[in-house]
Amino acid sequence: MPEVHLKLPHHQYVIHVRAGLLAELGALVRAVVPHDRAAILADQQVLPRHGQAAKQSLEQAGYSVVVQSVAAGENHKNLQAVAALYGTLVEHHMERKSPIFALGGGVIGDTAGFVAATYLRGVPFVQVPTTLLAMVDASVGGKVGVNLPQGKNLVGAFHQPQLVAIDTDTLRTLPAREFRGGLAECVKHGVIRDEQLFNWIDDHLDAILALDSASLVELVRWNVRIKANVVMADEKETGERAHLNFGHTFGHAIEAVQTYGASDGYSHGEAVALGMVAATRLAVNARRCDASVLDRLIRLLDRLSLPTSAKNLPPTDALLASMQLDKKVASGKVRLILPDRMGAVSIVGDTPASAIVAAWNSLRTS
Amino acid sequence: MPEVHLKLPHHQYVIHVRAGLLAELGALVRAVVPHDRAAILADQQVLPRHGQAAKQSLEQAGYSVVVQSVAAGENHKNLQAVAALYGTLVEHHMERKSPIFALGGGVIGDTAGFVAATYLRGVPFVQVPTTLLAMVDASVGGKVGVNLPQGKNLVGAFHQPQLVAIDTDTLRTLPAREFRGGLAECVKHGVIRDEQLFNWIDDHLDAILALDSASLVELVRWNVRIKANVVMADEKETGERAHLNFGHTFGHAIEAVQTYGASDGYSHGEAVALGMVAATRLAVNARRCDASVLDRLIRLLDRLSLPTSAKNLPPTDALLASMQLDKKVASGKVRLILPDRMGAVSIVGDTPASAIVAAWNSLRTS
Repeated sequence: MPEVHLKLPHHQYVIHVRAGLLAELGALVRAVVPHDRAAILADQQVLPRHGQAAKQSLEQAGYSVVVQSVAAGENHKNLQAVAALYGTLVEHHMERKSPIFALGGGVIGDTAGFVAATYLRGVPFVQVPTTLLAMVDASVGGKVGVNLPQGKNLVGAFHQPQLVAIDTDTLRTLPAREFRGGLAECVKHGVIRDEQLFNWIDDHLDAILALDSASLVELVRWNVRIKANVVMADEKETGERAHLNFGHTFGHAIEAVQTYGASDGYSHGEAVALGMVAATRLAVNARRCDASVLDRLIRLLDRLSLPTSAKNLPPTDALLASMQLDKKVASGKVRLILPDRMGAVSIVGDTPASAIVAAWNSLRTS
Repeated sequence: MPEVHLKLPHHQYVIHVRAGLLAELGALVRAVVPHDRAAILADQQVLPRHGQAAKQSLEQAGYSVVVQSVAAGENHKNLQAVAALYGTLVEHHMERKSPIFALGGGVIGDTAGFVAATYLRGVPFVQVPTTLLAMVDASVGGKVGVNLPQGKNLVGAFHQPQLVAIDTDTLRTLPAREFRGGLAECVKHGVIRDEQLFNWIDDHLDAILALDSASLVELVRWNVRIKANVVMADEKETGERAHLNFGHTFGHAIEAVQTYGASDGYSHGEAVALGMVAATRLAVNARRCDASVLDRLIRLLDRLSLPTSAKNLPPTDALLASMQLDKKVASGKVRLILPDRMGAVSIVGDTPASAIVAAWNSLRTS
């Protein structure tokens, strides 16, 4: 499977996926964003493991490199972190053409990406995702942003990177729970677009969980291709890009009500797994989709040790209130992404509140 | 002179300039950004004078309207103001298609515009400038942003409005010093693009300063047309849009060193007037341009009661350091916009530091 090219009317870039890619980072970037200096904004947990390799590769390619550690965790993805990073960039005289690198997971990619989108009205940006979730989802497509106290991703921009450099070897040091969370997004891509991918994950799960190198590259490239195709068809989410929110309207509500990133709460991937089950069950109950889709989804999520029911879910009225705050709301109506069959979904804007309540409740009792 | 249309590859909009336009605001906006609610973010000094007219017009057009007062002054154009406004928009359930109005001068336009550019990754935005400076400069062209403690406009975005609604009657309540500051930008447009405009201002100055209605509409439309043409040729300032910075590299340094908006300091327009004199004298000294351009510039600025010399300027080394922080710096080199003749300028990247020092010093001694 060749490298993925993401082509938009105003911009195009390559998403490189290889084992050991960090060593090539400088050369890849030099060809696209030549400059005399660069800033690496790195997740503080990722920095000790991969910071040196990234820095060295850039220095060998002629960049003078500033490395800034950024606190990890969804609760640090906020305007305070953004303000602090602006300060770092000013202090080190980063200019309009100085590339900014995000090294880490989705939190750092979203935060550093927003900083890159807005510092000096936008500077070049390179995504170097080190979690499976960031590789297959957040690093591709240019959505960047941070949370507000009132909700997730309420502030942001569309700022496409100059390139995305994915070294699948970084997955070897990723905690197992985070890896499984990323697989939830891969399963999502299967459900919304590609039954073959869904089946391939099911068939190759042992190799994937054993971090087989070729399987990881195949998995990430396949998912990146799906994500890139959706973004190419609808960069600004006026239509089908909303399909990627399958499981997320429910999932974000869980994350918001439990307070983001609470250490005893559900991770993003876990919340999305629950959200996919809730949305699919809602679709089955509404006779939009065959019950076998729900069965297959639950079976695969179970194999991945991802949650498919949740007895201790927050109160339904709090979850409903949070859904109303979601960006997917239009004129007060919650828009849901519901499966039609395995591999295809629709945007549904007229779901009765009673059906949404029933879907929440079914997560508690199933 | 007809209304000005600003056409870009991805977006186009109309800049309406008329006396009494506020009463038509709702109907104009309804045709472009229909929605059930809207937010007016208004300069606290402008709100008592024009807030009710704007709100009423929008309500008559069917919008449910939230009005939020925003502190006036360059020292409030910061990330704290932005964060507070995000809170207002969330609290009132503004959605992806809810238009945000900036009612006031450049500070509110830039701040509210940045909020509109980034809230929910971008919502529709309408500029309703009430100062001459904002009418002929900041409200047109989509540059929005705020200051950092380290410098002016270091954070921002390109976010084009859906329309610009200019009611020249609002100039009748504008303090005289602010009006003259706006005229500095009009003179700038003459120097960089249009000798006819420069002469027209000179010839019609009495009518302009007497706030003659037809002259104000003519003045604003003419300047808006020049600004729009520059933006259409180079939206993202990769080339000739930089011409608009004539006088501003020097001017911003003055503003930054004296701390923005200090009540006893130079206003933006005054700093730009000094900056234009400094840049033009530098060009004359470098034999890039005839001395008559400097003479004509100084004579017109004098007639406008704008400063053309400054005995009490901050120390030159502080001004030079501030210029180095300016966004116009590329690889450590200060880029200046220098006149070739009346009506034409060039971007010059290799000015010796000694010539810049001499230009600063000449402002003190002339």
